[in-house]
Amino acid sequence: MNYNEIIQRVRYKDTDQMGVVYYANYFIWFEVGRSEFFRAMGMDYKYLEQNEIFLPVIEAYCQYKSPARYDDLLKITTKLNFLQEVKLGFQYEITHAEKATLLATGQTTHAFVNKDGKPVALRKRNPFFWKLIKDKIQEEKDV
Amino acid sequence: MNYNEIIQRVRYKDTDQMGVVYYANYFIWFEVGRSEFFRAMGMDYKYLEQNEIFLPVIEAYCQYKSPARYDDLLKITTKLNFLQEVKLGFQYEITHAEKATLLATGQTTHAFVNKDGKPVALRKRNPFFWKLIKDKIQEEKDV
Amino acid sequence: MNYNEIIQRVRYKDTDQMGVVYYANYFIWFEVGRSEFFRAMGMDYKYLEQNEIFLPVIEAYCQYKSPARYDDLLKITTKLNFLQEVKLGFQYEITHAEKATLLATGQTTHAFVNKDGKPVALRKRNPFFWKLIKDKIQEEKDV
Amino acid sequence: MNYNEIIQRVRYKDTDQMGVVYYANYFIWFEVGRSEFFRAMGMDYKYLEQNEIFLPVIEAYCQYKSPARYDDLLKITTKLNFLQEVKLGFQYEITHAEKATLLATGQTTHAFVNKDGKPVALRKRNPFFWKLIKDKIQEEKDV
Repeated sequence: MNYNEIIQRVRYKDTDQMGVVYYANYFIWFEVGRSEFFRAMGMDYKYLEQNEIFLPVIEAYCQYKSPARYDDLLKITTKLNFLQEVKLGFQYEITHAEKATLLATGQTTHAFVNKDGKPVALRKRNPFFWKLIKDKIQEEKDV
Repeated sequence: MNYNEIIQRVRYKDTDQMGVVYYANYFIWFEVGRSEFFRAMGMDYKYLEQNEIFLPVIEAYCQYKSPARYDDLLKITTKLNFLQEVKLGFQYEITHAEKATLLATGQTTHAFVNKDGKPVALRKRNPFFWKLIKDKIQEEKDV
Repeated sequence: MNYNEIIQRVRYKDTDQMGVVYYANYFIWFEVGRSEFFRAMGMDYKYLEQNEIFLPVIEAYCQYKSPARYDDLLKITTKLNFLQEVKLGFQYEITHAEKATLLATGQTTHAFVNKDGKPVALRKRNPFFWKLIKDKIQEEKDV
Repeated sequence: MNYNEIIQRVRYKDTDQMGVVYYANYFIWFEVGRSEFFRAMGMDYKYLEQNEIFLPVIEAYCQYKSPARYDDLLKITTKLNFLQEVKLGFQYEITHAEKATLLATGQTTHAFVNKDGKPVALRKRNPFFWKLIKDKIQEEKDV
């Protein structure tokens, strides 16, 4: 299983005067999704940063299908999309947890950089983490 | 001239613990960009909503080239990308206002909907606004 | 028991370049705290709004004791502070869920208003909700 | 003159489903207010941080008088409130720039700390900045 699911509730803060969730906030849920993905994989993102590997976003995309509203329970599904020497891709699906309606889909791409923002080859910089991700992606192919 | 430029300063609030602007915040600047684009075109977005035309985002994309930092002055350049019966596209460029470095580029696509969230044909629903946008796009082609 | 506890995890989004949570974000956790307090009391805040009772904040205060950091699990404890004809007070405590350190305390005061923003006397406008809150406060005194 | 005024426009992002600005966002304007106050005083806050003096908020308060709405132009007035060995106080007023209605007032208190979060005596740590603030406060008394 190379995906991870978590539940988040829409806060009043997330809404705007259209009565729905403001579009930029979906990217925050994507962050929560990949953060929990890392945790489930056994490698909390904070440990990566403590080891001076950072994963800044270099590309982000979201397609909005149906609006999320205040107090809705959302299910965020996060999958690894690809792994390359210096970058990593995730894809996301946000559905209404109770109605199962698809609300949004998206992707983010992340570079591997050191604390000075310079690109690093993850395979060399942290072979353990590299292998964890590699294996996750392999699992999918094996299914 | 079918584009509009405005300046925004990076707030402490916009930064994250990586010491740079959090990725979702660029979409807020895109909002500021198109809001000022509407104003410069002579049609404030708030009047559109008062006339019960709403432009929810149905697609959003951002590519991050170089990080924005606290207190940076940013120039947001907004252009009309396309106009169709029921949707509208913008593109954005964010540069460091003093160093002229390109920081990010992006696009958003917006549906025309009524207060119940149903799609409306802008040409019929508000011919004046339709023509304003049409003319803006034509200007570009005429250059 | 007239209080309610919930757990929230600090997101990357919540941090700023000082490496800790940005001060305004504690007020978002206060919102989550009172939202869950209403739910636990049997009166979701969204139903109040559907019944055209709104509780805008008229006063907010936070004292910061120790910084919350990325990925920390926080416990938000929310209590009813007071109930008056046209307003309601909450108090909050945010502690580190694992270390039990006190991070912040705060209060908010809310007016009861209708959809036009005019004050309403809750006791008349929604006696059921009034009684729910009254009883909650009484519980405390009885202990 | 020991105060500073700046103008900010309400973004769509700032609103919530009540159709007004979400309460926590006023604290972001307070930040913008004090950031510009430092700049006007000749000591940008970013230089303070480069000199390893940080001013985390230890107390924050806001009283909401009248709601700010989308696209409103707001005037943020920031004043020094007090200066002590290890802390500093600001007060703020937010008014509707065109209608001159008072929307909110507030205060924040800041500690002087080093990069490890330890309190520092500003008078010793940075006598130049200490004097700048001292003089600002004196100006007021001299009026």
